[in-house]
Amino acid sequence: MKIVRVENGNTLSPAGFQAGSAYCGIQTTSTEGDVALLLSDGPAAAAGLFTTNRFAAAPVQWCREILPASGTRAIVANAGNANACTGEQGRQDVRASAQLVAELVGCAAADVCVASTGIIGHPLPMDKLTQGIRAAHASLAADGAAGQAAARAIMTTDTRPKTCAVRVETPGGTFGVGGMTKGAAMIAPNMATTLCFVTTDAAVPVAVLQEAMRRAVDLSYNRITIDGDCSTNDTALCLAGGASGVAVPADGPLRDAFDEALQEVMKDLAVQIVADAEGGTKVVEVRVTGARTPHEAGRVARAIAESQLFQCAVAGADPNWGRIVCAAGYSGVNVDPASTSVTIGTDRVLDKGTPTGVDATATMQGDRITVQVELGQGAAEACLYTSDLTQEYVHLNSDYHT
Amino acid sequence: MKIVRVENGNTLSPAGFQAGSAYCGIQTTSTEGDVALLLSDGPAAAAGLFTTNRFAAAPVQWCREILPASGTRAIVANAGNANACTGEQGRQDVRASAQLVAELVGCAAADVCVASTGIIGHPLPMDKLTQGIRAAHASLAADGAAGQAAARAIMTTDTRPKTCAVRVETPGGTFGVGGMTKGAAMIAPNMATTLCFVTTDAAVPVAVLQEAMRRAVDLSYNRITIDGDCSTNDTALCLAGGASGVAVPADGPLRDAFDEALQEVMKDLAVQIVADAEGGTKVVEVRVTGARTPHEAGRVARAIAESQLFQCAVAGADPNWGRIVCAAGYSGVNVDPASTSVTIGTDRVLDKGTPTGVDATATMQGDRITVQVELGQGAAEACLYTSDLTQEYVHLNSDYHT
Repeated sequence: MKIVRVENGNTLSPAGFQAGSAYCGIQTTSTEGDVALLLSDGPAAAAGLFTTNRFAAAPVQWCREILPASGTRAIVANAGNANACTGEQGRQDVRASAQLVAELVGCAAADVCVASTGIIGHPLPMDKLTQGIRAAHASLAADGAAGQAAARAIMTTDTRPKTCAVRVETPGGTFGVGGMTKGAAMIAPNMATTLCFVTTDAAVPVAVLQEAMRRAVDLSYNRITIDGDCSTNDTALCLAGGASGVAVPADGPLRDAFDEALQEVMKDLAVQIVADAEGGTKVVEVRVTGARTPHEAGRVARAIAESQLFQCAVAGADPNWGRIVCAAGYSGVNVDPASTSVTIGTDRVLDKGTPTGVDATATMQGDRITVQVELGQGAAEACLYTSDLTQEYVHLNSDYHT
Repeated sequence: MKIVRVENGNTLSPAGFQAGSAYCGIQTTSTEGDVALLLSDGPAAAAGLFTTNRFAAAPVQWCREILPASGTRAIVANAGNANACTGEQGRQDVRASAQLVAELVGCAAADVCVASTGIIGHPLPMDKLTQGIRAAHASLAADGAAGQAAARAIMTTDTRPKTCAVRVETPGGTFGVGGMTKGAAMIAPNMATTLCFVTTDAAVPVAVLQEAMRRAVDLSYNRITIDGDCSTNDTALCLAGGASGVAVPADGPLRDAFDEALQEVMKDLAVQIVADAEGGTKVVEVRVTGARTPHEAGRVARAIAESQLFQCAVAGADPNWGRIVCAAGYSGVNVDPASTSVTIGTDRVLDKGTPTGVDATATMQGDRITVQVELGQGAAEACLYTSDLTQEYVHLNSDYHT
């Protein structure tokens, strides 16, 4: 079995899906689109993972009610308004949106997933959204350009659309997995913000799909962090339509290949989010090794990746590794200074608690930086991706009413 | 009993102390001083609280060994180099510094507390520090100006020295409590960064002093947070010399008055740190009420106070209260959206889960902002002080090698 990357691939690379998009004026900072509609030609298995935030937005509550499901037809998403903290009105608005899509495509409201991103606490402008959904429906098409336009329509402060797709060649035929995502700020593990919509033309039983999504999110969106803020609207959905005729069983090589393909697409999308972090200019891989447990490795990695001071140092290409060990030291893990080593790129700056005097300035000037912290306490490890913290991030988040 | 604020008071307001300071070139960003020496005329009770960071700096390790103690004579501090992650050399340098002060003032090395702040992972330039300690000793004086100069000498990116003192009038006589502190970045609870040195001319048994300091730190430095980064060098020390002749017992009204005075001074110093946060322009009080337990109230308050997105909104006077509830939602506490209310100043923006439509823009434009989050789940509460996150913070921490 072989997994091949599809050039310029997106959610329409797998067969059996159409996408539409429109601009209806909910998003005030861009006019490139703020409503996206993804339609499966027939009933699809659908599974999703959502924010752990207690103030889960109304669309998240809706999706949690209807998923997992085996007869899902569509996902409708809007950017510019999160429909979060909007009380009973917010729930009614989600239902109305799903109902409208259901009427347009001919299915039940419960077969329509809804997702939103944008400002919290403002009621959805339903007149605009209604018009936007109708326009998005009218624009439905199956070509790659329609998938790209949909990826653009879910953007908020993203500077570019984010898509990815692979093709999986198996003895029993070929199937595809494709996805789109949006990110920018409010990216944190458990699970990363953003909206992420994935399609596949494999036929996947819904329980298998749910489990595969859980694993894939854990290896992708839960491995990135930008500012530690876990949003009210995080949503990752996958629709499996089955148009390829390839059926994925619960176990065996075909299942493994499906998992691998899903993970490859979602990892790629997640790292695209970090690379396009609000104001960010660099991607940093924080790798913690030699921990007693994966949990401890993860805590140390997260403390470092979310340290504002470290992120500022990355922005300034400042090889101030003291901020790395400082964050490890307050992570809550009982790290041992005497057994801790730090390597930036290939520059070992701290060796078992003793500074080496190696200057990592040149390494810090790259736009892809790897920091490895070896704790010398065990064999467990963890890895997180983060970005730098720049003045532009602050500018975007203090002057822009997101 | 009456507690009176001393105008322009500092560590020399209580009787029986002298301060000296000097500039020896360790701090490269300012020439206003980088070594401070605080001397008790006689043996003093001494107690301290320190960072919880596992990479505690060499001077912190030293103080932990020698404190609490009843015959302490001096505190010597330097700015510009943290002497953290400096291995065995760092420990030797602390010992040599304490030994030098001991020779100059005539005591044992173990009677000298040492504190450092500045860059991590670089060996102390002992030739410079030796010269600085000698110069600071030569400048020892008991007048208020000497106390002010010492407060200036421990500054790093602080824009102004921070001091405070009170006088306590009791039936048995008057005693004083005075302090100085430095802060700027790397401020987080448990405990706040920074160096904090407090003096009193009350006679306080060392066990009472240690307990009083623990309570006071809990009510002051552990209630402020700027960037969530808990440094390697956090040190709060108190010397009680006894020159006033007033003896504080373990219990009773005099003990209460001493605690109150110590807390007033340390709270004032802690809030001064927030007001002078790196790049900060505002002081924000985050008050969480109606929680099930004080621990839960504290977790919610901390999540809000440390949310980069909220801190950016404060910088931009953006009444984006969605970021407040979002942070409450990911705090890890099982908050109930339907019972949560948010008030900014006197503007109730969210009432039991429903947005009120009240616009808090004018309130957010103040430089002292109060945010109250009522959880509606119990009677416990917590309060934290934080600052805004500005482009200047990022500028300082990416371009300045702290």
